[in-house]
Amino acid sequence: MSQPPFLSVSRRTRSTPFTRRVTENGVSAYTVYNHMLLPTVFETVEADYHHLKKHVQVWDVACERQVEVRGPDARELVQWVTPRSLRKMQDDQCYYIPMVNDKGGMLNDPVAVKISDDRFWVSLADSDMLYWLKGLAIGKNLNVDVFEPDVSPLGVQGPKSDDLMADIVGDCIRDLGFFRHRQYNIGGKDYLVARSGWSKQGGFEIYLEGTENGEQVWDILFEAGEKYNVRAGCPNGIERIEGGLLSHGNDMTEENSPFECGLGKYCHNEAMNICIGGDALRAEKKTGPKQIIRGLTLSGARVPSCVNPWPITNEKGDRVGQVTGAAWSPDFGANIGIGMVDKNHWDYGTNLTVEATDGNRLATVGPLPFESV
Amino acid sequence: MSQPPFLSVSRRTRSTPFTRRVTENGVSAYTVYNHMLLPTVFETVEADYHHLKKHVQVWDVACERQVEVRGPDARELVQWVTPRSLRKMQDDQCYYIPMVNDKGGMLNDPVAVKISDDRFWVSLADSDMLYWLKGLAIGKNLNVDVFEPDVSPLGVQGPKSDDLMADIVGDCIRDLGFFRHRQYNIGGKDYLVARSGWSKQGGFEIYLEGTENGEQVWDILFEAGEKYNVRAGCPNGIERIEGGLLSHGNDMTEENSPFECGLGKYCHNEAMNICIGGDALRAEKKTGPKQIIRGLTLSGARVPSCVNPWPITNEKGDRVGQVTGAAWSPDFGANIGIGMVDKNHWDYGTNLTVEATDGNRLATVGPLPFESV
Repeated sequence: MSQPPFLSVSRRTRSTPFTRRVTENGVSAYTVYNHMLLPTVFETVEADYHHLKKHVQVWDVACERQVEVRGPDARELVQWVTPRSLRKMQDDQCYYIPMVNDKGGMLNDPVAVKISDDRFWVSLADSDMLYWLKGLAIGKNLNVDVFEPDVSPLGVQGPKSDDLMADIVGDCIRDLGFFRHRQYNIGGKDYLVARSGWSKQGGFEIYLEGTENGEQVWDILFEAGEKYNVRAGCPNGIERIEGGLLSHGNDMTEENSPFECGLGKYCHNEAMNICIGGDALRAEKKTGPKQIIRGLTLSGARVPSCVNPWPITNEKGDRVGQVTGAAWSPDFGANIGIGMVDKNHWDYGTNLTVEATDGNRLATVGPLPFESV
Repeated sequence: MSQPPFLSVSRRTRSTPFTRRVTENGVSAYTVYNHMLLPTVFETVEADYHHLKKHVQVWDVACERQVEVRGPDARELVQWVTPRSLRKMQDDQCYYIPMVNDKGGMLNDPVAVKISDDRFWVSLADSDMLYWLKGLAIGKNLNVDVFEPDVSPLGVQGPKSDDLMADIVGDCIRDLGFFRHRQYNIGGKDYLVARSGWSKQGGFEIYLEGTENGEQVWDILFEAGEKYNVRAGCPNGIERIEGGLLSHGNDMTEENSPFECGLGKYCHNEAMNICIGGDALRAEKKTGPKQIIRGLTLSGARVPSCVNPWPITNEKGDRVGQVTGAAWSPDFGANIGIGMVDKNHWDYGTNLTVEATDGNRLATVGPLPFESV
């Protein structure tokens, strides 16, 4: 497609507490994520990228819907669905957790926010894990409530995030550790704020409770942010590849294991002994995965957008992987991509061919995140 | 929004077996439905409407993803999730089934396709019931496989559907009953075809098995359809309101019971005794629902698109309902809408006020589907 199609918005593609502000700030494209609008472009992807890496942006990531798991069996349920051990998880911690099906395939890669042993928020990537968690709980008769609370994350991302947030809630926020959370007062109301977010530029996520408070919090950020050149932004298709941030549904699906996604460090023996899909994961841990996610640098002129996976082939023409995201990186001065590469070809420095939409390109395998190219 | 935003397509907003053909046929807008592209407009909504009601259209409704439930406990699992009794369901039948949560709220309103007692396809509206069914099965340790097969429905809708399909598979298809299915040979391969579809113009849904066969079947329909003025089409926002076809996520959500949605006839005592949410449904059946879905005719000039619900108020200004879909109907020569109306105001002929995006309108309550206005 030369020009992207239009999106028909409806109640079903849910608006967020921030949608009116996002519109006022000139959003030009959306995707739909967890049945909700997620902005994808304001000015251009490249202009948004440069701004993100220099200043601070406010991101409507309300589509990171929460599943609240609450009750005496909350921890048991959350531990049942992930191979990552929650044993040492503290009440102010966020854990990035692979969630897998009974064959060990990636269902989602949410951030679990622990509030207490009997209360978690699971902050989702794009699949309805509400029904998975709830179905398991009902099927097993667990003593737990599972529901979607009125909680909408608002991202504050970019190198000036600390300065902006400190101006609003005080310097104490500078001490908040990575993937830790605490309550902070914004506009007279306490919100859970975590040092997290889907960029490598630093920043926070404000877990807005109460749709009716969305515009007030947004406005406070923009008023205080004026001197930091704050803008409305969104997860950026270039920056996320540079940073090696995985996108569930793009870079990985249920067909992929956590090991293939480079998430083996989140597969713990004690957890694999009890979680769904643990048998399959333990078996794969012994043999190692057959393919793994890698960074790839691609030769030639600016790559087009990678909508459907681009095959990766070796010198014999055999398919040995696929690229699932690609972009021209202005800072690296190169085309960079992300994709799965088969075992015999995944060593850094291996040269392969990528069959992009507009023709073949030479590709070199490298690490994620990109360090230099 | 005066002009709709653009949609950023990606692997995550899955393409279908027919996307290339849909693009070639001039799709101009999409929505995302079950993580998949669903066309919403080709020429204009109104031009598409007139064509649909006169001729025959081919609809890419691959986004009606299937959950296959297979194994000795298949029927037990499907019956567990719906208050509609499956006792009399035959192996060539499709049932429209409300699926409800533990409080009786509408999770989805799929069409269940029974192939045999140990094999069902559940053809979904827009929520990941795959995880609900699979979570319940794992939690309860049922002997059943639950998965998404490579099956993509292709709609053939409009008054000339029978003629078109008869030319392709033979006159025997004229005898296929409503919501019945059979295997028909198209292009050398047998496919399940049902007399069903999300319009009131008559037609079929071909359950395409095998992504690789999509374009062949599409092309066969277009070749044979030339003399019937076949076009690419899609669910139509005007026709579906005229016909009273409900849209889950728009007209109803988990907050609504089947009784509120006018689906009380699909809540059977024997099934409510065993299904999830049955207690809540039995209690509501005794008292009756507090609100119900209705047709509404709206005064004034052409209504704008209804993205967020429009409040319905009575003469005192109290909120007594909401409109969740609205359109100018050329054939009725009136603005028609669909929405929930509270008990004391739901009688046909009641006059109320609808607070549309562009101002208040007089509204009159009536039946669904619309008969005349």
